[in-house]
Parts: sequence; C-alpha cells; structure tokens
Amino acid sequence: MHIAGEMVIGRSLVTGREGSLKAIDPSRKTEIEPAFGLAGKAELERACALAQAAFDPYRATDLARRAAFLEAIAGRIMDLGPALIERAMLETGLPQARLEGERGRTCNQLRLFAKVVRDGRWQGATLDAALPQRSPPRADLRMRRIGLGPVAVFGASNFPLAFSVAGGDTASALAAGCPVIIKAHSAHLGTSELVAKAVARAAAECDMPEGVFSMLIGAGQTIGQDLVTHPVIKAVGFTGSRQGGLALVRSAAARAEPIPVYAEMSSINPVFLLEGALANPALAQGFADSLTMGAGQFCTNPGLLLAIDGPALQGFVDAATAALGAKSAATMLTPGIHGAYLAGVQALAADGDVRLLAQGADAGAPCAAQAFLYGTDAQSFLANPVLHAEIFGPSSLLVRCRDAAEMLAVAEHLEGQLTATVHATGADRAQAAALLPVLERKAGRILFNGFPTGVEVSHAMVHGGPFPSTSDSRSSSVGAAAIERFLRPVCYQDVPADLLPEALSDANPQGLARIVDGELVPG
Amino acid sequence: MHIAGEMVIGRSLVTGREGSLKAIDPSRKTEIEPAFGLAGKAELERACALAQAAFDPYRATDLARRAAFLEAIAGRIMDLGPALIERAMLETGLPQARLEGERGRTCNQLRLFAKVVRDGRWQGATLDAALPQRSPPRADLRMRRIGLGPVAVFGASNFPLAFSVAGGDTASALAAGCPVIIKAHSAHLGTSELVAKAVARAAAECDMPEGVFSMLIGAGQTIGQDLVTHPVIKAVGFTGSRQGGLALVRSAAARAEPIPVYAEMSSINPVFLLEGALANPALAQGFADSLTMGAGQFCTNPGLLLAIDGPALQGFVDAATAALGAKSAATMLTPGIHGAYLAGVQALAADGDVRLLAQGADAGAPCAAQAFLYGTDAQSFLANPVLHAEIFGPSSLLVRCRDAAEMLAVAEHLEGQLTATVHATGADRAQAAALLPVLERKAGRILFNGFPTGVEVSHAMVHGGPFPSTSDSRSSSVGAAAIERFLRPVCYQDVPADLLPEALSDANPQGLARIVDGELVPG
Repeated sequence: MHIAGEMVIGRSLVTGREGSLKAIDPSRKTEIEPAFGLAGKAELERACALAQAAFDPYRATDLARRAAFLEAIAGRIMDLGPALIERAMLETGLPQARLEGERGRTCNQLRLFAKVVRDGRWQGATLDAALPQRSPPRADLRMRRIGLGPVAVFGASNFPLAFSVAGGDTASALAAGCPVIIKAHSAHLGTSELVAKAVARAAAECDMPEGVFSMLIGAGQTIGQDLVTHPVIKAVGFTGSRQGGLALVRSAAARAEPIPVYAEMSSINPVFLLEGALANPALAQGFADSLTMGAGQFCTNPGLLLAIDGPALQGFVDAATAALGAKSAATMLTPGIHGAYLAGVQALAADGDVRLLAQGADAGAPCAAQAFLYGTDAQSFLANPVLHAEIFGPSSLLVRCRDAAEMLAVAEHLEGQLTATVHATGADRAQAAALLPVLERKAGRILFNGFPTGVEVSHAMVHGGPFPSTSDSRSSSVGAAAIERFLRPVCYQDVPADLLPEALSDANPQGLARIVDGELVPG
Repeated sequence: MHIAGEMVIGRSLVTGREGSLKAIDPSRKTEIEPAFGLAGKAELERACALAQAAFDPYRATDLARRAAFLEAIAGRIMDLGPALIERAMLETGLPQARLEGERGRTCNQLRLFAKVVRDGRWQGATLDAALPQRSPPRADLRMRRIGLGPVAVFGASNFPLAFSVAGGDTASALAAGCPVIIKAHSAHLGTSELVAKAVARAAAECDMPEGVFSMLIGAGQTIGQDLVTHPVIKAVGFTGSRQGGLALVRSAAARAEPIPVYAEMSSINPVFLLEGALANPALAQGFADSLTMGAGQFCTNPGLLLAIDGPALQGFVDAATAALGAKSAATMLTPGIHGAYLAGVQALAADGDVRLLAQGADAGAPCAAQAFLYGTDAQSFLANPVLHAEIFGPSSLLVRCRDAAEMLAVAEHLEGQLTATVHATGADRAQAAALLPVLERKAGRILFNGFPTGVEVSHAMVHGGPFPSTSDSRSSSVGAAAIERFLRPVCYQDVPADLLPEALSDANPQGLARIVDGELVPG
C-alpha cells in the first residue's frame, strides 16, 4: 500500500511544505521512506475552518448515521490489511501479534462507540414538565448534552493504532458529535497516513461533512501548540509525557477562551503486596510478565511495589530475580524513549538509597530495554520525590515498609495514579480495608490480585485518575465513559415542539431512557 | 437573634484577629454592627485540616444519613425565623418578599439535593461482568463516582441565601460527599453567620464529622486566594464578577496540583425579538419587568436585545419607553456594585454609536439604580467589544439589525452566555430554526417567548454556559445536575465482594438503576 508522505485535510490529501520528517525504525535506528511534509499555518487554518463548518451539520446527523460512520472507519481500517501491520511494526518495533491485537482493540473501540451513539444515553435527556398552575408557574424545561465543538487529538507513541489517528480519543469525540483534528505522532507517520486515509474514506462513503476529520503532521512545539490555541478548537485529548501534557494544559488555560484538556500523563501504578499474598508462588512471575509486557511501555506499567519487610518478601524477591532473569530485552518505540529510559534507570542505580534487586537479560540490539527491579526503604522513598517519578519502560521500584502503618503512610503520600493494585488474601482483609479509602482518593482504578497492564474497553472502565496521572480526574480516556469528556448540557425552556431536538421531543422517537420530573423512565 | 461577628470552624465559633469588617446598609450607606473578625492563616489551616480529616468518614456516610443532614440544614435555617430575613434586608437592600422567596428556594435546593442523594443515581453505578472464558479473560469491573474532596465555596453578593453559605454550591458539594469551606461574602456577613451556625447545628445534630463544614470571613485577595491554593482543596465554586472568577481560575491552574474551578461570571443574555413577536403588546412590559427585577442584579438579566429595524421595532421601543418610565429606582446590593453600575451606564451613554432610548425613574436614595435602555446598530456592536461586556444592573442595549442575516451574524459573534432568548411566532419559524444551532453553541439555556430571569431549581435546568459566562461549560450551578461538578469516577476491578461499596454490590441494597454490561437495568 502506497504511503505518500501526505496529510489529510477534509477531503484533500496535502503535502506540507514547512520542512519534512521521516519515521525511524527503532530496531535499526535507520530512517524509513518516504519523507512527510510538515504542516504550516495555512494547513492548520484550513483544517480548523473545515472543522468549524462541519460542527453544526455533523452534530445534527442522526444517531444511526453517526454510528454507521464509526463502524465504517473500523471497516476501512480492516481493509488496509497486512500493509498497516507491517508499516506499524517497522515504525514502532512492536511485534505482529501485539499490533494485530491493538488493531482489533481499535476497531472494537469504534464499534463500542457506535453502540454508545445508537443507545443515545450519552445525551442525558432530562425533562421537567411545565407547571402552569404553580405560583410562580414553572416553564417546560428539557435538557440534553451536545458536543463541545472541534476537538484536537494528539496521537500517543505507545499505541500507534488504539490511541492515535482513529483511537479512543478520536472515536469518543466523533461519537459526541465533535469534528476531530489529529496531530499525528512523529514516531509512526506512515501508520498514521494509512489510518487517516481510511477515516477519510469512511467519511466520504458515509457522506459526512468534509471537515469532520483532518490529520496534520508537524512538530508538537509549533503545529501542536498552534492547534491547541486556535479559537475553533474547544477541547483537547492527549496521551504522553507529563512535560508534554502540562505544556498543552498551560497553553489551553492561557487562551482568551480557556478550554478543557484531557491529558493522560504519567503514573507509577503502585502495587501493594500484602503479607498473605506474598506466599503466592505465581506472584513474582505475574509481576515480571506485567512489567516487561510491551517493553514496559504502558501507562499502567507496575512501576512501584510496596510490601512489609520479612522472609515472605525475600521469597518474592528471589522468585522475581528468577522470573526477570528469564526476560529478554525488547525494542523500545523510539530512540528518544530508549534514551530517557536509560537515563532514568541510571539515575536510580546511582541513588545511594536504592539498590538493584533483579534484572532481565542484557540489551544487545539498538533501542532494546533491559528490565530492572530496584529496592529502597519507605523512609528513603518518602524523603525523595525523584523516586516517585515515572520511568517509562520495564523498571520497577520495591519499597520495603516496616509495618502496615508505614505502608499506609506511603500510600497517603503518593501522587495521583491511573491505577492502584492490592494483592491480598482473606487474612489481609483488615489491611486491605484500611488501604481502600486512601486508594480511592489516589487512583482511577483499584484492582485486586491482578496486574494493572491490560485496560479493558468497556462501560465500567476508568482510565484516568487524580493529577498528575491525568490533567482532569473527572473523566476516563478508555471505555464508554470517554464520550462524557466532549459534552456539555443545554437546557431548552418552552422551546416549540417543532424546534425541539429529537432526544427531547414528547414522542421520544429514539426510545431513550429519560429522567422525567426527576424519575428515570426506561425507553 | 444575636450576631457575634464570628466564623464557624468545624464545631468551634471563632473570632478572627486579622483586622475586622462591618457589613454596610446600602440604603443608607452606613455600617451595621457588629464588627466581624477576619481569618488569618491559623483559621484557614484549621478549617482545611478538619475538612481533610472529615472527607473519608463523610463520604462513607450512608445515603439516608447524608440526605437527612441536608434536610436538617433546611430545618435549622427555617428555625432562624424573621431574624434572618431582617438581617438580610438590612445588609442587601433587598425587599422582604424577595428574601423570603429566596429562603424558600434555598431550603428547596437543600431538599432537592437530599432527594438526589437518596436516589443515588449520581453515583453512576456501572457493572461489567467478568468473562473468564474469553481470550483474554475479562476481569470483573465496577464503576461508581465519588466526591472530589473538600470544596471551597465563594458566596455570591446577589443571592445572600440561595448562592451563599448554604446555597446551591454548598448543597451540591455536600450532596456529592465533599466537605465545604465557604468564604462568606463581605456584603452580608451577619446573614452568613446566622446561616453558618444553622449548618453547624444541623451537622452536630446529625453527628456528621466535625470538618464537614466551615465558614471563614476574610478578604478575597488574601484568605480567598489562600483557600483556593491550599493543597487540601480539590474544587472551587464561585459566583461573581469575571475579574474575580478569572483570578481564582488562574490561581487554581497555577497550583502544583491544578483543580477545577466552577466560576459563574458574566453574561449579557441576548434576547432576539423576531418580527412576528414584535407585534405582541405584552412584550415591552415583560422586558421591563425582567430588566428591573431585583434592581437588575441577576446573572440572567436581559442585557442585550436584538431586532430587525422597522416600524414594529419602533412600536416596541415606544411601549418599552412607557413601561420603563413607570419603574422606580431600587437599592443595589452594595455601594461598590452601585458605583460600577453608574460607571458602566455612563460609559455607554458617552459612546458615540449609542443613544438612550428609554429610562426608568430617577434615582434619589443612596445606591439606587435607574433603569436604562440604550440603542445601537449591528455594525457598531460588532466593531466595539466594550458593548459586549456585562453591566451588572438594570441596563440593556438594543441592537438594530438590517435583516435576518445580520442578526445571525451578530449571534455568531457573541461570547458565551448563560442564556439566549428568542421571541417568535409561527411566522418566525425559519429564522428561529436558523438561530437555534448558533444559540446552542453560545448558551447553556435557550428559551422561547419568556425572559431569562427566574432560574428554576429542577432536574433539567442548566445554569452554565460557554466561557466567559462560566469557566467550565460542562456543568450547571443550579439544579440537580450541579452535583456532577464535584464527582469523579473510580473503577473497582476484581475487588472482593466484602470490600465493594454498597452501590456496586451484587445485592444492590440501594435499589439503584445501574448500567450492567452496557444496558440500563432499572432499580
């Protein structure tokens, strides 16, 4: 399948003229053809003007057509066949099975949001009947939620399909009725072009307004910042580093009209190994598998273990030494990510209060990451904020606590997290119960007797959490709830029946469950 | 009823020692006894420490107890009897009937949120069953929403009861399970003390954790900013000026951990008078009544009229001249608000493109506001951002448009608004239909053939809107939806049954309607 180095701006394929960029094969540290032209102001303005023009007609599409559009995107992605997987493998160093799985997840996300759109519950239809006899009379009041407006999406490095051009942010924004302009991640430009053209084909086939989707290629510091500060853009979805996310948050807050930014940034995902659970012989293997999955390049990677010191913990460390020792090094996504990983683990190794407990096989190939488990004690951890920072990759830190009270104190001092995990048996119940309210305040997802990697795309999933794991703890970027991020409520007071939106009409043609005078009325 | 000049910090009554302040009777411009001591850092730290300690036990209270607490607050406010109304009249210049009505609204808000709490729908309980046979297996996933943490509330000048100490922000935050620290508005200090003590009595009577509620007295630039930047505070509710709101937004964004600010700031609430409706003889009277209600001191005051020029419009202006001419001047809330109103209308009067169309009776008494209707044309309005700014008080600007297209262009250039109103008959349908999508993008509430003042406290109400009418268009500060502002989702993955929160347990003892595997299951 031909990759031309192009952007997609509405129905046009455009080659940028503000310099060019090539993707890099991280397993060889070599450039991959072709060169991609970078967007300038003109391309940005064109994409924004089209998105603005598309907003009203796109949000007016009926639920069935909007859902069909999302499903068509999934179909056109599958049509790309092996060419998409091959290009993504080349650009990311990720293995075929992982990328095929991720493609499946990407299409399932689009289909989940199609179902969500059809269901219509996201509109939050709420009706309060007029009370003309009351003193004072009450007007007829009806509320629904509509899209915020055009959304800027920033593709993630570590999910070239599921959190990139047609990933979760794009799917949920389109589901909410918001046009999307995505800035492609420079690490997988060819993958992005293929997927963007698939989205554009789906949009044309479903007769969507032209500006419903555009993809720009350019540097984050220029075109990315310009996009976030453009008056047409009304919300931002981002997955990446804390530094990158905070830069977007600051830019969005400094606008004449500030806008919401949903930045999913960094998390060390504490795993509490309670005493009863330490006896589980499978625990260390489960940890090693989770730590090294995808070369540790998941936002839910278990970067922190906490346990009470003693013989049971030593048993776990011995088993982890064996399990990690059997793990080979795996290619990381980009030379930049690999360099940052090396710097992170070298700094940890050099810390006087930290010592190496276990490691994976040595890294031979370019950009390959060796796994590490380091150890420290609770007082050193509490005293040193550097030890709380995410090291993106297969490295984890075990914090030895003197007792349950010290473990609780460490939990209370953690920053906001995407996940918090407890390994516990019935014998650990009291300690688990004491941890739970603290973890509710610290994390978006609490899991027991598992590992945090592997984020289900479903209705009850929360992939979000208190700052700095995300910039907005009120939301999830994975699962059906992600649509909520791009909606706002509008109330219609005494609006004539023939001007009311379908979701609020007396006839309820969408068959919605609605809140009527405060009571839930099934559809 | 004795007013001591005290703050309420948890269960203690405290006299601040950082200077003092007296309330002012605006109808006489005289100080009212007693002096109120102002809070320093020690009082702030004490209130924050208590709120933090109260958060976990308070959010763990069962729904019935939390609802009973809200109802007890309403009861203890009613117990204050005429003393509350008398003090509020003295401090605000508002008439008895208005304040009695506002007290009723305040208590109804508390009772509405008690109902919302008991109903439990706000928890958003969502369950995805485990799929152990699937490859890969799906874990058991359950999601509910919990409170964000302690909330700082800033009382509004113009609703000394309904948007102050025990007003909508406080009621919705308490309903969400969040302790509240309110900074009393300096314009109604005695009213605030009375109500704060009523809240404290209700908290003690319902055996709530001590820090669930505190009220501080102090200057916005000092204690207000310190409150918003305190690490314990996790969200802010504010109603007031754009300047004041933006200062809080900036402070909250600059924190090490940024937090959401719900600032309801300013709105000119455009009213579109379409041609068919201009013939309605009651239109001008309705407008004059709405404009002058409460001396024009409502955030939904109709500060902007838009109509197509012609004889029908002249008829409206003539009728408005008569209706406004019969309106006497009314006392404004504070000398500061009155001074700002005078400055605003003087600036308007001095603008070369603006002329006076109609006015109310002259103001004699101190702080009394005369009503004004000014006029300009669409091109002048579009060219002059000053004409888009809110003048808080009974002044409105009529913008004459050449035709429907020009009216639509003006609508498209408006800033975000709390409300947008259309007066239309069947003959105006096409024009109303063309305006509607624009108004959906511009306003939180769209109303037909009425006036925007008078905000119903119900389930379908939206009192919110795009920036700068509020700092966060995704929310409402009035009505049942206001609780959403203070919640965040938490996912529980494979959490043992005996540790699951009630809302998510298999037995569903709260009888909640829940989302189960994506389908709504009534309770």
